[in-house]
Amino acid sequence: MKIRILKNELNESIQHVSKAISSRTTIPILTGIKLDVNFQGMTLTASDTDVSIQAFIPVEDNNKQIVKVERAGSVVLPAKFFVEIIKKLPSQEIEMEVQEGFQTLIRSGSTEIVIVGLDPEEYPILPAIEEDQMISMPGDLLKNMIKGTTFSISSNETSPILTGVLWNLSEGQFKFVATDRHRLASRAIALQSEDVRFSNIVISGKTLNELSKIIPDQNTVVDIVVADNQVLFKIDRVLFYSRILDGTYPDTSKIIPTTFKTELVLDTKQLSESIDRAYLLSREEKTNIVRLQTLEDGSIEISSSSSELGKVTEQLAVSQFSGDPLKISFNSRYMLDILKVVESEQLHIGFTGAMSPIIIKPMDDSQSLYLILPYRTSN
Amino acid sequence: MKIRILKNELNESIQHVSKAISSRTTIPILTGIKLDVNFQGMTLTASDTDVSIQAFIPVEDNNKQIVKVERAGSVVLPAKFFVEIIKKLPSQEIEMEVQEGFQTLIRSGSTEIVIVGLDPEEYPILPAIEEDQMISMPGDLLKNMIKGTTFSISSNETSPILTGVLWNLSEGQFKFVATDRHRLASRAIALQSEDVRFSNIVISGKTLNELSKIIPDQNTVVDIVVADNQVLFKIDRVLFYSRILDGTYPDTSKIIPTTFKTELVLDTKQLSESIDRAYLLSREEKTNIVRLQTLEDGSIEISSSSSELGKVTEQLAVSQFSGDPLKISFNSRYMLDILKVVESEQLHIGFTGAMSPIIIKPMDDSQSLYLILPYRTSN
Repeated sequence: MKIRILKNELNESIQHVSKAISSRTTIPILTGIKLDVNFQGMTLTASDTDVSIQAFIPVEDNNKQIVKVERAGSVVLPAKFFVEIIKKLPSQEIEMEVQEGFQTLIRSGSTEIVIVGLDPEEYPILPAIEEDQMISMPGDLLKNMIKGTTFSISSNETSPILTGVLWNLSEGQFKFVATDRHRLASRAIALQSEDVRFSNIVISGKTLNELSKIIPDQNTVVDIVVADNQVLFKIDRVLFYSRILDGTYPDTSKIIPTTFKTELVLDTKQLSESIDRAYLLSREEKTNIVRLQTLEDGSIEISSSSSELGKVTEQLAVSQFSGDPLKISFNSRYMLDILKVVESEQLHIGFTGAMSPIIIKPMDDSQSLYLILPYRTSN
Repeated sequence: MKIRILKNELNESIQHVSKAISSRTTIPILTGIKLDVNFQGMTLTASDTDVSIQAFIPVEDNNKQIVKVERAGSVVLPAKFFVEIIKKLPSQEIEMEVQEGFQTLIRSGSTEIVIVGLDPEEYPILPAIEEDQMISMPGDLLKNMIKGTTFSISSNETSPILTGVLWNLSEGQFKFVATDRHRLASRAIALQSEDVRFSNIVISGKTLNELSKIIPDQNTVVDIVVADNQVLFKIDRVLFYSRILDGTYPDTSKIIPTTFKTELVLDTKQLSESIDRAYLLSREEKTNIVRLQTLEDGSIEISSSSSELGKVTEQLAVSQFSGDPLKISFNSRYMLDILKVVESEQLHIGFTGAMSPIIIKPMDDSQSLYLILPYRTSN
């Protein structure tokens, strides 16, 4: 392999694929990034076996030459050093040449670097994927669904299935659900998918957050291919492979109440600021417990207390109030996580009693739903 | 104590004094901020015994009423919670009232907070300082001298005196020196101080960095009062007290060579980028060793190598070169720390041999000097 390549383009692709590099890998070859050069361009590959990312740099783009290939070939280079050094090279033009024993010479300006490379034959081959189950959606919508659900995944590795986000696609609806047994987040969109449908696909929440970072903010379409045991995301010239998690996701539909005994409509920002203040105190008690109580004048009171520090009491106007008076306690951190992703100015909170799930819905988005289990305290 | 006070002004003063709060204090009352209110205004005090900070909020400033005092008095409030809650109060106006047993009621908008306060009589009294040894200097100059020296202090608590910066004022020169025995940084300025002079005052480098954060960027004059065992900095309405470190600072004047066998003048930015690339590799070997070698064509070569990763070789043009050919090895991290604070476009490096101190001086600042001890390697 012997090429000239432009620094910015190489750097961008390295940044994309390096997100698949795990510092905890026990397979030495996977600490590297694989480069494959042919006369169409360069393909970079990185993997931690659960996630694999591939980026392609064409020899030419918009009539601009990006790679000049003198000799095709492959090599695996140590990711950590390669990622940092390319960024810091002095010139926009980089020469790379793989020599005897995969030693790789990199030249840029008056800088000369020799990197000890590894044999690309040792690098695992990415499994082929059949593309008959493919859907397409706008990238920003996908990012939004990821952000709106992954905060509710479990961080506890003892129930690995709950570290994932559940996907279902049927009857024109594409739905994400995440829960850690104490709270639940669910978002859906309408999606015309013709013959494609799938159910109970679970994908790691952490992986989805990494995927989000690769999806550009501007108008991009992401193609999603669902295969037997993995999902492939195609974003421009980047291919992002994620393993599907093994196991059966719990049926969450039964725990979501549909009728309520008490209903409130509130201003999202006011509620958020109010709970944030109560949280500051509840945090000191480690429990994060905040109390919500309806008052006789139709407003509500948010409060928390700490034996050592004192107490916070907030009175909050509500836009609508119906049903029974209520006193309920919940984890303020969970509520703040939800309020952070609600974009609607107003939200609806439904209660079926002090011991039953609290349901939060943005007022102008019927496809999102959040649930928190209350604390079973005596007050 | 019963007052009304404006949120932004209170918050700003809290931010200042809270820098003296240590999370590791073993004295419970010092986890709090002391508030003293009289009819002139409010004084806030925080201390970790080594550093004490006081901020004064006048009842009126520029004809704007800031504090309305209904009843004078004092209280100590838990710093961590107080710092965060004031910032997040809903209204610009805050009511504070100390009640029975130092319970403190805070009201803002429809938020009501009760904080468990502590008895201000238990709070240590700040020692009085005689102000006969006072100098004044521009705040940005002081910040610059702090930034230009504190990076060279020792982080090793076994020689506490080296965790400080040495101050000397005599014959119109005010000088800072810091060293950790492997490197040294020294900066001086001309300062007309009339009768004031002092020698071998040592102040904690960490404390000086905290002080830096309080000094505003715009034109401020800082008054510095040097007393028996402490130094007081006056910045607008903030008083910053620092303990003087006990012990004798080593005499560093003898280790600084004044004649050189090899001298180079180099572009600061080019050298910095070049060593940064070599550092990336040297870091992997934990030693951070980089080699500098003069070449026959009058340029220099910067290089580093790692048995596992490979090597980096950089050729660098020099503006001036005089003296003997040279090969020397040093810690690239130390050199980068220096290059970060050198503002001059070009710098002078003087060598007296591969085993002797390296002296770095900015070309247009004769009052700054940096020293690195080389590695005693065979090449």
